[in-house]
Amino acid sequence: MSEKLNQLKEILGVVSDLNHAGSVLSWDQQVNMPPGGGEARGQQLATLGKISHEKSTSDEVGKLLDELKKEFTGSDSDESAMIRVAARNYDKATRVPAEFVAEQSIVTTAAFEAWVEAKGKSDFSIFRPHLEKVVGLVQKYISFFPPADHPYDILLDDYEPGMKTAEVQEIFGSLRPKQVELIKQISSAKQVKDDFLHKKYNEKKVWDFSEIIIGRFGYDFSRGRQDKAAHPFETSFSVDDVRITNRFEPENPLATFFSGMHESGHAMYEQGVNPAYERTPLAGGVSSAVHESQSRMWENLVGRSLPFCEQFLPELKKTFPSQLEDISAKSFYKAINKVEPSLIRVNADEATYNLHIMLRLELEIEMIAGRVAIKDLPEIWNAKMRETLGITPPDDAHGILQDVHWSYGLFGYFPTYALGNLVSTQLWEKINKDIKDLDEQIRKGKFDSLLGWLREKIHIHGHKYDPQDLVQRVTGSKIDSAAYVRYLTKKYSEIYGL
Amino acid sequence: MSEKLNQLKEILGVVSDLNHAGSVLSWDQQVNMPPGGGEARGQQLATLGKISHEKSTSDEVGKLLDELKKEFTGSDSDESAMIRVAARNYDKATRVPAEFVAEQSIVTTAAFEAWVEAKGKSDFSIFRPHLEKVVGLVQKYISFFPPADHPYDILLDDYEPGMKTAEVQEIFGSLRPKQVELIKQISSAKQVKDDFLHKKYNEKKVWDFSEIIIGRFGYDFSRGRQDKAAHPFETSFSVDDVRITNRFEPENPLATFFSGMHESGHAMYEQGVNPAYERTPLAGGVSSAVHESQSRMWENLVGRSLPFCEQFLPELKKTFPSQLEDISAKSFYKAINKVEPSLIRVNADEATYNLHIMLRLELEIEMIAGRVAIKDLPEIWNAKMRETLGITPPDDAHGILQDVHWSYGLFGYFPTYALGNLVSTQLWEKINKDIKDLDEQIRKGKFDSLLGWLREKIHIHGHKYDPQDLVQRVTGSKIDSAAYVRYLTKKYSEIYGL
Repeated sequence: MSEKLNQLKEILGVVSDLNHAGSVLSWDQQVNMPPGGGEARGQQLATLGKISHEKSTSDEVGKLLDELKKEFTGSDSDESAMIRVAARNYDKATRVPAEFVAEQSIVTTAAFEAWVEAKGKSDFSIFRPHLEKVVGLVQKYISFFPPADHPYDILLDDYEPGMKTAEVQEIFGSLRPKQVELIKQISSAKQVKDDFLHKKYNEKKVWDFSEIIIGRFGYDFSRGRQDKAAHPFETSFSVDDVRITNRFEPENPLATFFSGMHESGHAMYEQGVNPAYERTPLAGGVSSAVHESQSRMWENLVGRSLPFCEQFLPELKKTFPSQLEDISAKSFYKAINKVEPSLIRVNADEATYNLHIMLRLELEIEMIAGRVAIKDLPEIWNAKMRETLGITPPDDAHGILQDVHWSYGLFGYFPTYALGNLVSTQLWEKINKDIKDLDEQIRKGKFDSLLGWLREKIHIHGHKYDPQDLVQRVTGSKIDSAAYVRYLTKKYSEIYGL
Repeated sequence: MSEKLNQLKEILGVVSDLNHAGSVLSWDQQVNMPPGGGEARGQQLATLGKISHEKSTSDEVGKLLDELKKEFTGSDSDESAMIRVAARNYDKATRVPAEFVAEQSIVTTAAFEAWVEAKGKSDFSIFRPHLEKVVGLVQKYISFFPPADHPYDILLDDYEPGMKTAEVQEIFGSLRPKQVELIKQISSAKQVKDDFLHKKYNEKKVWDFSEIIIGRFGYDFSRGRQDKAAHPFETSFSVDDVRITNRFEPENPLATFFSGMHESGHAMYEQGVNPAYERTPLAGGVSSAVHESQSRMWENLVGRSLPFCEQFLPELKKTFPSQLEDISAKSFYKAINKVEPSLIRVNADEATYNLHIMLRLELEIEMIAGRVAIKDLPEIWNAKMRETLGITPPDDAHGILQDVHWSYGLFGYFPTYALGNLVSTQLWEKINKDIKDLDEQIRKGKFDSLLGWLREKIHIHGHKYDPQDLVQRVTGSKIDSAAYVRYLTKKYSEIYGL
């Protein structure tokens, strides 16, 4: 049996190598590639993806898995988990015909280009026919799988294995009125001052400072690097080469710090996975929500905390004395946590962020059910924004066209952003029970106990446990919103004197 | 038949994609990769190499080639050339067993590491056992092929298809006494002054200036980029993404210009190949010597010419006024062409460079014939250096250990550097017949006629013609040394008043 296991691992190792090679090519495409390189790069990525798909869906893999499943079922061993995850991946990959994958690639490539143009011109009509095709493909994708409790379950499962739409809806249903009520309270409180965040800051100094921060957090630069790209992201080529990108926006210069913290949270997760899982399906973070819990924890629960401001501001003042003159840690803390209903999800504060997600989930469910006409989406979007946040997008670019996801065919992904916020606070409550003086440590710029805890409880396990099981093992309950509501209420009560 | 041709092209296109993906991974390894990333990267490259080898040596390819060869033989069409080159590649690749390739990879990886250590400690004994193994593998490699006129032919053919050892020996045999005589004359002439080349120059300004130069030459930055790396090199991911690397050495600051010109020469060749050859065996430069003729032409025949100094120096003086005060174009020209027998090949001037190559060719032939004991190599090297250039390496690092090639198993490569020098001057004589006012154009900073000529006569053809045929087609004769001797004699007579 161990010989069969080795055969399987050998094939999956090759698949992992091919996928990581593809990741290097994609990273290069976004960080370095000269403009001319795009066409050949698309071809090269398609070839790597095709061979990886062929190898991972071969009959040989199917046979090996069938035999190994009998042997390794039920135990808590790494082997057993690996076979479980491999079998799930195999089942999914073999249900989807290669021609569909090819068609999807063509449709989404065109859809992405149309989205770029549509967003630039703020004209949804350019994107509309493409989105119609994409939704058609998403519906077709769902049809390859056995009927689920909810068709959306099939999409969600690709990012959050085992999670059900009904669970998400229940969580969001209980969370929503509490967030809406909180925002209402904040909007009648005195607004905080944040003008000093939008002064002129030197780009190189901000960039270097961002690397100092994440280096202290524990992001290992000997196994990673931070580069400039149009959008911040994290990508892994192995447990020992986990890279992040960042950007500098002159109108919002300190956003670079928080993007860096966010991406380093993803990256520290990837750097902390058990090295024994390399080149197996257990490598890497387990789900989008758990991944997001790590990035949001470092960005928000650490980076936007008062203890961190107390640690960070004195040093920042040395680098930017004129911009931050007379600013106290408390004022800085308030400013970086300013709540203001706004149009763009990625710029949203913690109090409003999840409402952006709920809107998207509702629309995705309606779209795949065919209950909305794509042409009506801009108006529906705008109505929901008015209803949820009391503001109306002035144009499509600031409304329905703001996110790239649908052009890629990424349906089922958005909810994991909000779930990640929830998980981050569930973990945070547990961490603060286990590390009594965590605030004090943060105030001293010490993050090793925190990172050590995350390594041991979350990172090391990679894909071994399904996300809900992992959260349950670590916190004692599945994903829910109670901790997040407690966190938001406490934080904003302090800041806005509610 | 066109269906079979398409089938073949499809497979070879996939092979090309895999090889280019490997090139991206290798480039990244040398330019960006954090230290931790090495192990996984090695594995990923091995996987890409293995799949590429499997696909390119499949029975399917063999059968398609057998049938297509009958159809397309003899004609001057692109298809005919493609099948000829593909069949040669297939024949070579299928002769070499996969286990040998795997063993070679293991041996040379260890040999490279040992070489790095040996060179650092200047201790040949560390490298010796590895070199013995490498030579054993090279001998074994030769044994996979039918006996040739000379065993070295088999090695040379991998870099210079169709070229024979006897031809190289004849060329070198006629060239050597003339270069030796020239050096003797120079050594008794008054030495030129070059102290101003070794002053302190600002790195960023040098780097930026190097990009201005190669941009003017015609290197297309929209289809390429220049990055820092430990060693200058050129690499292609497609005809539209051809990158170069460069470095800055404080003790020899202006070397960055010449490395940049050299690598841009390689890169302009790759950027100029017929785009219709993409993803076929006709893509890319035809041979190492023809490639080197392009890099050496831009570096030496253009970059180290008096007209170029006349064009370049006034601008350079604006950037570096204090370093170049009172330096005339003529003095600058003399300084950058200073002849001085020296220990290190890569730093050698044009008058002595080929002698370094001849020494290596002699040793390689002796090694693969088993006529020298590897342990005696340092002494033999040093004796040959005394005999050829009148200088004795003070240690192994400045002698036998200076080049990386043998640790990689690259035997048969060195001669192409010298052949490239010869070809560059053969082409140069022809170009100057076709473009009468070339000197004047260079003096004005105009390089489009020159690049246009190279594009039309050399670049566009990619691998279509074998290198000797290509040189013959363009210059009217095969590779020979007469033009090079004329060039060296004229240049150094002017500079040293011989």
